[in-house]
Amino acid sequence: MASLSVLRSAYPWIKTPLIACAPMLRIATGPLAVAVSRAGGLGFLGAGFDLSNLEADLKHSAELLAKLDTPINHKDTNGTLPIGVGFINWGADLKTAIAAIKRYTPCAVWFFAPASLPDDLVPWAEAIRSATNNKTKIWVQVGSVSEAITVAESLQPDVLVIQGSDAGGHGLARSASVLTLLPEVKDRLRERSMGHIPLIAAGGIVDGRGLAASLILGASGVVMGTRFLTSKEANISHGYQSELLRLSDGGRCTVRSTVYDKVRGFTSWPERYNGRGVINQTYVDAVEKGMPDEENQRLYEEETKKGDAGWGPNGRMTTYAGTGVGLLRDILPAEDIIRNTQVEAERAIKNISAE
Amino acid sequence: MASLSVLRSAYPWIKTPLIACAPMLRIATGPLAVAVSRAGGLGFLGAGFDLSNLEADLKHSAELLAKLDTPINHKDTNGTLPIGVGFINWGADLKTAIAAIKRYTPCAVWFFAPASLPDDLVPWAEAIRSATNNKTKIWVQVGSVSEAITVAESLQPDVLVIQGSDAGGHGLARSASVLTLLPEVKDRLRERSMGHIPLIAAGGIVDGRGLAASLILGASGVVMGTRFLTSKEANISHGYQSELLRLSDGGRCTVRSTVYDKVRGFTSWPERYNGRGVINQTYVDAVEKGMPDEENQRLYEEETKKGDAGWGPNGRMTTYAGTGVGLLRDILPAEDIIRNTQVEAERAIKNISAE
Repeated sequence: MASLSVLRSAYPWIKTPLIACAPMLRIATGPLAVAVSRAGGLGFLGAGFDLSNLEADLKHSAELLAKLDTPINHKDTNGTLPIGVGFINWGADLKTAIAAIKRYTPCAVWFFAPASLPDDLVPWAEAIRSATNNKTKIWVQVGSVSEAITVAESLQPDVLVIQGSDAGGHGLARSASVLTLLPEVKDRLRERSMGHIPLIAAGGIVDGRGLAASLILGASGVVMGTRFLTSKEANISHGYQSELLRLSDGGRCTVRSTVYDKVRGFTSWPERYNGRGVINQTYVDAVEKGMPDEENQRLYEEETKKGDAGWGPNGRMTTYAGTGVGLLRDILPAEDIIRNTQVEAERAIKNISAE
Repeated sequence: MASLSVLRSAYPWIKTPLIACAPMLRIATGPLAVAVSRAGGLGFLGAGFDLSNLEADLKHSAELLAKLDTPINHKDTNGTLPIGVGFINWGADLKTAIAAIKRYTPCAVWFFAPASLPDDLVPWAEAIRSATNNKTKIWVQVGSVSEAITVAESLQPDVLVIQGSDAGGHGLARSASVLTLLPEVKDRLRERSMGHIPLIAAGGIVDGRGLAASLILGASGVVMGTRFLTSKEANISHGYQSELLRLSDGGRCTVRSTVYDKVRGFTSWPERYNGRGVINQTYVDAVEKGMPDEENQRLYEEETKKGDAGWGPNGRMTTYAGTGVGLLRDILPAEDIIRNTQVEAERAIKNISAE
C-alpha cells in the first residue's frame, strides 16, 4: 500500500498498523507523547491555541527521549524529534510555533480548526516546510469530504486525519462517522489522483476491533484520544479518569455541545465546531433547564475548586470523551495500550478471514 | 461463530455474510423484499405504523415468490414466507398484525420504536411466537447499549439489529455509530451470557467496506437501507433517486431532525427519536429562518403537487438518507447490490489479511 510506505519512510521507528495519540490539550504532554512513540506509535503534544509553553514542552520531551533505556535510534528518526505537535490553528501563533519547530524539528505537526480553511493554513505549511527542510511532516485533521479535498488540493499535506462524529472533544458539529466518511474521502481523493495521501482514522477507535475496521475502511493507521485518557502517562486528574471508567453506553452518556466551551470561557472556536463531552450538570442546566450561560459559568468556576470531586454525574467539570468511552476498562501504560490494540486487531482480522 | 449458525438454520437460503434490506416505510414493498431474499439476502416489507395494507402486501409478495423462475425451495424456508415484516410499534396494531402473520408466516418480524421499551413489545413477541409456533423469528432494532440489554433480557429476541448514528430515517436522536455501539453491545451481552444473539449492524453500511468493517466489529450480518433506495425494485419516485445520486459528503448534506416529521404531520414518534434526512428548504426555513411549523407544513403540502421536481436542494420533499449517501453511484437490481457488496467485502478482508 503506497500510502503506508509514505508513513514507514517518514517514521522508520513505527510498528504497523500505526497508532497515533491525539494532541489532547493539556493532557497529551511530554510523558504521554514520548511513551507512545517509544512503543512504536506516534505521540503528539497538545500545543493547542496558546503556545506559551511549547518550547518548554518540547525541551522536556527531548530530555525524556534522551533518557530512555533503549532510545529511539537517531538514524531511525530522519533527524527529527520523534514526536509531533498539534495546533489549534484559530488561536495558535505562527511565529512562536516556527521558533520552537526550528529548534526541535518535531517529526510532525498537526493542524486543526483554522478560522478559515484552507487560507489560514497555507502560510503555516509553507513556513514549517521551509524551516525544517521538509523534515517536519504536515498532518491536517478534517471532518468532511469537502474539507479533505480542499486541504489535499491546496496544502499537499503529508497525512490527512479523518475525524468522524464519534470523536471526543472538538470536531465538526455535523459529520458522519468514520464508517462512511473514510471510504467517501478515499474514493474522492483517488478520483482526483491524490489517493497516495495516507488517511488516518480518528473518532471512536478505542480497541483492536476499531483499528481493524478502520484499516478495512481504507485507513493507513488510526488516532486514539479517549483510549489514551486512561493511560498511565496522561496528564489528567484522577477524578476525570475515574469518571471515564465508570461510564457506559457511550452514544448516550456523551453529547455534542458548545456549552462546555461557554462555561470555560473558550469563545473563539469557529462556529462549525462543537465538542463531544459526557452529559453532566452543566449540560443539564443549560439544555434542560435553560440556565443562562453566566450563571452556569459561575457554577463551573466554583466547581473547579472541588478537585477530583468536581467530576461525576452531578459534577460540572468537563469530561470530554468519545462514544467509545463505554469500552474503557482499565488504566494502562501507553505501551500496553498500543501493543494490546495491535494484537487484538491482528486477531480480529485473522478470525474474520478464517470464516 | 454460534450466532451465525443461528441465522443459517433459521434462513437456510441466505448467502453469507448476510445482507438484509431495511423495512423502509412505503419504499420496501413486495418487489424489493422478494428480490433481496431471492438473491440470498433477507428482504423486509416496511409495514410501519399503519397496517391496513399489510395483508395485501404479503399476498402480493407471496405471489411474486411463487412466480420466480427459480423459486426459493420450500424446504429451505422452514415453512415460512422467506421475507420479513418491519413494524413501527408505537403505531402498529397487534391484532391486525397477528391476523396477517398467521395467514402468511413471514420468516421474521422486526420491531422498532415502541412507545415504551420493553413493555409494549412483550405481548407482540408472545403473540407472534404463539401464532406461528416460533417459526417467525423476532428481530428487534435498538440504538443503545441499554436498549440492547433490556430487549435481550425481556424478550429473548432471535436477532438484535444494532442501529448507529449514520442511519438514514428514524433512529435515536442521540447515539453512537456502529463503530463503538456494536462492540460495546457485544461485550455487555457476552458478560451476561447472551453472546449467542446474532447482532446485525445498521446505519452507514452501503458497500463491501462497510460490510467487512461491521463483521470485524462483531456483527453477524448487516442491514442496508440507503443503498437499496437506489435499487431498481425500490418503490420510490424518480426525483428521490436522482437526488440521492447527486449528493456527496453524506455527513454534511444530511442532518438529524424532527422537522421532516412535523411538516408531514407525523407527530406520534416517541421523543427519543428523530430522523436523518438531506438538508432541504424545509430544514433551512425551520432551523435557520425560524419559520413556524404550520407555514412550513403548508409549503410542504404544496410541494407534494410538484412530483419529481419537489426533490433537490431547493425542494421540500423529504429525502431520508444515511451518511453513506455520498457513496451511492448507480441504480442497480437488488441482486447486483447484494452480490457486489459481498464480493467487495471478501476482497477487502483478503487485502487486509495480506498486509
